[in-house]
Amino acid sequence: MKLADRFSRLGTETAFAVADESRKLAQTGLRIFPFHIGDMDLKTPPNIIEATTRTMRDGKTGYCSNWGIPELREAVAADINRSHGTGYTEANVAIQPGGKPVIHKFILSFMNPGDEVLYPSPGYPIYESAIAFHGGRPVPYSYEETPQGFALNVQDIEKRITPATRLLIFNNLQNPTGAEASPEELAAIAELAIRHDLTVLCDEAYFDIRYEGESLSLATLPGMEERCLILYTFSKKYAMTGWRLGAAVGPTGMVDAIAKLNVNDESCTNHFVQYGGLEALTGPQDGAKQIIEVLRRRRNRCHELASGIPGMTCHRPNATFYLFPNVTRIMRAMKIDDYEKFRRTILEATGVSFCTRMHFGKPLPQENERYIRLSYSGIDVQNIEEGLGKLKDYLS
Amino acid sequence: MKLADRFSRLGTETAFAVADESRKLAQTGLRIFPFHIGDMDLKTPPNIIEATTRTMRDGKTGYCSNWGIPELREAVAADINRSHGTGYTEANVAIQPGGKPVIHKFILSFMNPGDEVLYPSPGYPIYESAIAFHGGRPVPYSYEETPQGFALNVQDIEKRITPATRLLIFNNLQNPTGAEASPEELAAIAELAIRHDLTVLCDEAYFDIRYEGESLSLATLPGMEERCLILYTFSKKYAMTGWRLGAAVGPTGMVDAIAKLNVNDESCTNHFVQYGGLEALTGPQDGAKQIIEVLRRRRNRCHELASGIPGMTCHRPNATFYLFPNVTRIMRAMKIDDYEKFRRTILEATGVSFCTRMHFGKPLPQENERYIRLSYSGIDVQNIEEGLGKLKDYLS
Repeated sequence: MKLADRFSRLGTETAFAVADESRKLAQTGLRIFPFHIGDMDLKTPPNIIEATTRTMRDGKTGYCSNWGIPELREAVAADINRSHGTGYTEANVAIQPGGKPVIHKFILSFMNPGDEVLYPSPGYPIYESAIAFHGGRPVPYSYEETPQGFALNVQDIEKRITPATRLLIFNNLQNPTGAEASPEELAAIAELAIRHDLTVLCDEAYFDIRYEGESLSLATLPGMEERCLILYTFSKKYAMTGWRLGAAVGPTGMVDAIAKLNVNDESCTNHFVQYGGLEALTGPQDGAKQIIEVLRRRRNRCHELASGIPGMTCHRPNATFYLFPNVTRIMRAMKIDDYEKFRRTILEATGVSFCTRMHFGKPLPQENERYIRLSYSGIDVQNIEEGLGKLKDYLS
Repeated sequence: MKLADRFSRLGTETAFAVADESRKLAQTGLRIFPFHIGDMDLKTPPNIIEATTRTMRDGKTGYCSNWGIPELREAVAADINRSHGTGYTEANVAIQPGGKPVIHKFILSFMNPGDEVLYPSPGYPIYESAIAFHGGRPVPYSYEETPQGFALNVQDIEKRITPATRLLIFNNLQNPTGAEASPEELAAIAELAIRHDLTVLCDEAYFDIRYEGESLSLATLPGMEERCLILYTFSKKYAMTGWRLGAAVGPTGMVDAIAKLNVNDESCTNHFVQYGGLEALTGPQDGAKQIIEVLRRRRNRCHELASGIPGMTCHRPNATFYLFPNVTRIMRAMKIDDYEKFRRTILEATGVSFCTRMHFGKPLPQENERYIRLSYSGIDVQNIEEGLGKLKDYLS
């Protein structure tokens, strides 16, 4: 038995290693403050659980269409139309077992071996892995820290476009930086995508996880709907990460391809879980509102305390459940250059567990500043306070 | 937006088109007898549904390990050890969202572009699709009708092996023929696999759907466990098709690769559904026994009636929920050479809906006889009797 050559190019989410390490340290008696977790410690709203139970008992336990159940596809289209002002219908929606499957299905559908694909770094590590695994050339573009927060450098993106560039992966409301593009930046990216005829994955996993303002989608700009596939997920808004329910949404030509991959990959998404998703979208929204309020309190407190740590500077994103503080001065003061050494030193000394920039791709050549990611989706306000208090004491 | 080249090589399950056609005819008032369905019309046993509900309410709604929950991995290993006499542990099991995902993950893990892969034809159409989509060369091998039923032609398999042959897909207890290999045939295949260093996918989806005798696994032969990946599913035994729950089981080197693909493809399988699977394996087995008894009555009646149709000859497999009657004489008498024309003529005249050999791959050059597949997993005894009665009247 020999692994296929493509396996040498497969990446992973190295953040899982941080979780394992923290778990092991916890077993030795160290109290862990879990700022590394991308999962949520909040419960799925009970109306969603009850609707799912009812449907399961009613016998929705056989296969359904590879596209998903029509009612849920309509509800997802309506939800996106409401927030995006688009005119999607059921025909534009293919239900998926999570948001993540949309990434590799997008790559398999639209990328040939040798094609170049633009993707964000720092960014969700699965983009680079999927591109490389299926024989493409991953081309990272960066975010820049500005006094207002993290911003795209559109010139930097343009510089990286070659005749071989086919696809762009764009994650507005970004993991891990929390960055979101201004209307002007979105227009500039749309212009680039149209001029270079790029097909775009709009990863909108955090579209509804926002505390102020309004989320914008690249897919809504003139000429963009026809070239954008939206990654949609129930995971964050309704605290349904473990349910594995999402959708691919876009022009019928694109979604037809994705649905054909559904037949081949997994037949269909769990049947009764889809009725849970339907209840999530069409039932009372109190649960989703409570989730946002909890996350807002955590964000505020986390940002306030992180900003008070000597040497740390920290923007306050309006969306996502991440902070991405600059720790350059701290690392310099500690005389530590290596991200992993820095992370482990703090973890072992304080129990404060976080991911660093390294968990979201290799630092780019021009990158001089150092960052960590503080996630507040899996840690409550009291632990945020105690953890960041310990970190402050340690660094003072 | 342009589809990737590999898309021209992607297949599908054309059986879904038969289902669509039958549904449309039903809307015109024709009574349909659904022998085309691969799904089951039986209910998931209630203890499984209740365990799942309990777990969902208990808050198992976040992510779990990409490998699946340890308890379920142990239970799957124990279940296979019981029936196979193997010594698998938790480390040999990666939980999947269904049995089907094991097919493309096996291909992606062990096949390089240009490699030749042996697969059965007639056989489950997703094998050929996955091989071709990911750049391999699909090489079909056939089953032969004998007076005792369908049998492998091991010489025919051997003839097709070249220096480029890397993988073998083997579906003992076969869809659509119901074929199962004798111990001598298994030994001959194992000898081939070892001599030519083939890595093997053992699709055991129907391992526990049997009415007499005992299922045998290629993976249990000397020297085979280390080169076999077993496709395991909860779908048939516990009527859990729509739950999407299965597993890849094999040597750790192979299963490690599959689990790494899990991280990339879908993060994990639905968390609470895995507790349903755990109850299925460790709770009372009355539900599974009842399912087999219902299927046995259907098989007996279906076989008895199909054998009485003039011109049709029909073996009675001990396993699966399919019959694969020879209809050569009927087609000749009707002066129809085209499978689709034959299928549609009978569907429109009688409402009896079935798949033909064409839905399981292109007939091989040496293939002279004609076959259809009668599935009895989605049709009860009364409808079997009425449907096959109508078919007999029509053909008499």
